[in-house]
Amino acid sequence: MRAATIRDREIVIEEHPDPTPGSGEVLVRVHAAGLNGADMMQRRGLYPAPPGSPQDIPGMELAGEVAAVGEGAERFQVGDRVMGIVGGGAQAELVTAHERVLMGVPDGLDWAPAGGLPEVFTTAHDALFTQAGLRPGERLLVHGGAGGVGTAAIQLGRASGARVTATVHREELREQVAALGAEAIPAEGFAAHGPFDVILELVGAPNLSENLQALDTGGRIVVIGVGAGAKAEINLLALMGKRARIHGSTLRARPLEEKALAARHLEREVLPLFVSGDLRVPVAEAFALEEAAAAYERFAAGGKLGKIVITV
Amino acid sequence: MRAATIRDREIVIEEHPDPTPGSGEVLVRVHAAGLNGADMMQRRGLYPAPPGSPQDIPGMELAGEVAAVGEGAERFQVGDRVMGIVGGGAQAELVTAHERVLMGVPDGLDWAPAGGLPEVFTTAHDALFTQAGLRPGERLLVHGGAGGVGTAAIQLGRASGARVTATVHREELREQVAALGAEAIPAEGFAAHGPFDVILELVGAPNLSENLQALDTGGRIVVIGVGAGAKAEINLLALMGKRARIHGSTLRARPLEEKALAARHLEREVLPLFVSGDLRVPVAEAFALEEAAAAYERFAAGGKLGKIVITV
Repeated sequence: MRAATIRDREIVIEEHPDPTPGSGEVLVRVHAAGLNGADMMQRRGLYPAPPGSPQDIPGMELAGEVAAVGEGAERFQVGDRVMGIVGGGAQAELVTAHERVLMGVPDGLDWAPAGGLPEVFTTAHDALFTQAGLRPGERLLVHGGAGGVGTAAIQLGRASGARVTATVHREELREQVAALGAEAIPAEGFAAHGPFDVILELVGAPNLSENLQALDTGGRIVVIGVGAGAKAEINLLALMGKRARIHGSTLRARPLEEKALAARHLEREVLPLFVSGDLRVPVAEAFALEEAAAAYERFAAGGKLGKIVITV
Repeated sequence: MRAATIRDREIVIEEHPDPTPGSGEVLVRVHAAGLNGADMMQRRGLYPAPPGSPQDIPGMELAGEVAAVGEGAERFQVGDRVMGIVGGGAQAELVTAHERVLMGVPDGLDWAPAGGLPEVFTTAHDALFTQAGLRPGERLLVHGGAGGVGTAAIQLGRASGARVTATVHREELREQVAALGAEAIPAEGFAAHGPFDVILELVGAPNLSENLQALDTGGRIVVIGVGAGAKAEINLLALMGKRARIHGSTLRARPLEEKALAARHLEREVLPLFVSGDLRVPVAEAFALEEAAAAYERFAAGGKLGKIVITV
């Protein structure tokens, strides 16, 4: 099979042996695979794939058709439309995944949005509800509102009855972000728009101090990205005074059972909202597998709304 | 009435008008009132009492007899033995408290331990169970294990089936702390004794980095004291990698309903363990009200096991 491959911090297309599904696994013929910040870091050698995943083929999410089922796998049949997150290897013609991390693709959802759905909606849903315990009527601040996770978090917050504000660095994207259901504001001086009950942090250390300032009593900060820096000063007395908490989270390193549980949450609580039309996956641009290097350049350039997806 | 009074950062005994119970309140003739770190800070002008509490009479916890009941108060009758936390004013002959923050004193519990029970056991119970969600079999690290909150947290952790380790700065106190049910270790190099699932932090900023290092995946740090400093550097990438969370908490600033709820938790989940003998309040030393200044000096000197209490 052909696959996007990391060679000397560049993305090239190479031939690899076809993977074979192990016990409980499914072989998926990939139709679309989204790009994520973690792929960018992996390309630069900063974020190796977890053990058991291909080390040189990036891609943590995909949608496609079941091509074969391994021993003991019984959730899907050959030809079923599936999507899900994997530890790596999704930006390829074929990939294996444990059947319990896969979900059926909702009727009416095209391949490109389906391939860009799992990682960002699982990440946002887990952060907002499983971790921060976001409740209807609460005020949510989403940092990086134009990105993949940001656009997912805004829609999920809005659909749950939260009041959503989102920082958007590029002024030209604010109108599109607002159309997703958020008050779109500049990143500079965001605390003036608070206080907030929950803050989803995708930027990192530079925001931490102002996040704490912008938080209401009992508020929660969930840190799921540190692209702009990891080390920050924290005032623990302010944290105490606000009776606040700070969560750190990442999906990729979690064991199979936690990823499977997150997939069940998504099936039950989120996927029906794609069928009803309440949620959508904004796809900024789709690239063919042969153009994978260009897809990475597009992601790195920023200034997009939503997902960059590779279609196969 | 006579009361310990803050004058120019010193504790003196002065006459004050007798307080009168408002609607839903109870007037308590104080028999014992514990000292806490917050009293020390208040004496130095660093931690003013919340609005509605006496500003110049310290004391956040007490045990005593009901002397009168205000309009609409129906939980207690004159003569009942009660204890509880208040916003301030407890180190006095009389104090008023809302009836819903008061609890009955368990049979067989003397005044001195009862007067030193509410603040530290409420603080420790709230931090360990309501916030950190400590579960049976988990590994708990208590910093400052010889102090009031520390001795409460060790016993509560042990009674819940957790495996408890406690840092104790003074070597001569380690045996007594171990007798409460913890492995007592020096504060230096505590991370080598980990990993831990829950860390109760009473010391503050200097421990934060090593706390994060000592935490297991999915671990929780609860910061309830910053006596040794409030500002620390935090590595958010490490927080993400461990999928950890950091809680800040303080009891004093909470609204009545939250304090009342915490009292109900204590009545149901903790006070029966005093009757059964599983829990006790280690009282390091008791001072008469007239000796309140000496009690503060004793507290500030450190090196005690458990509570300093003023008896009236």
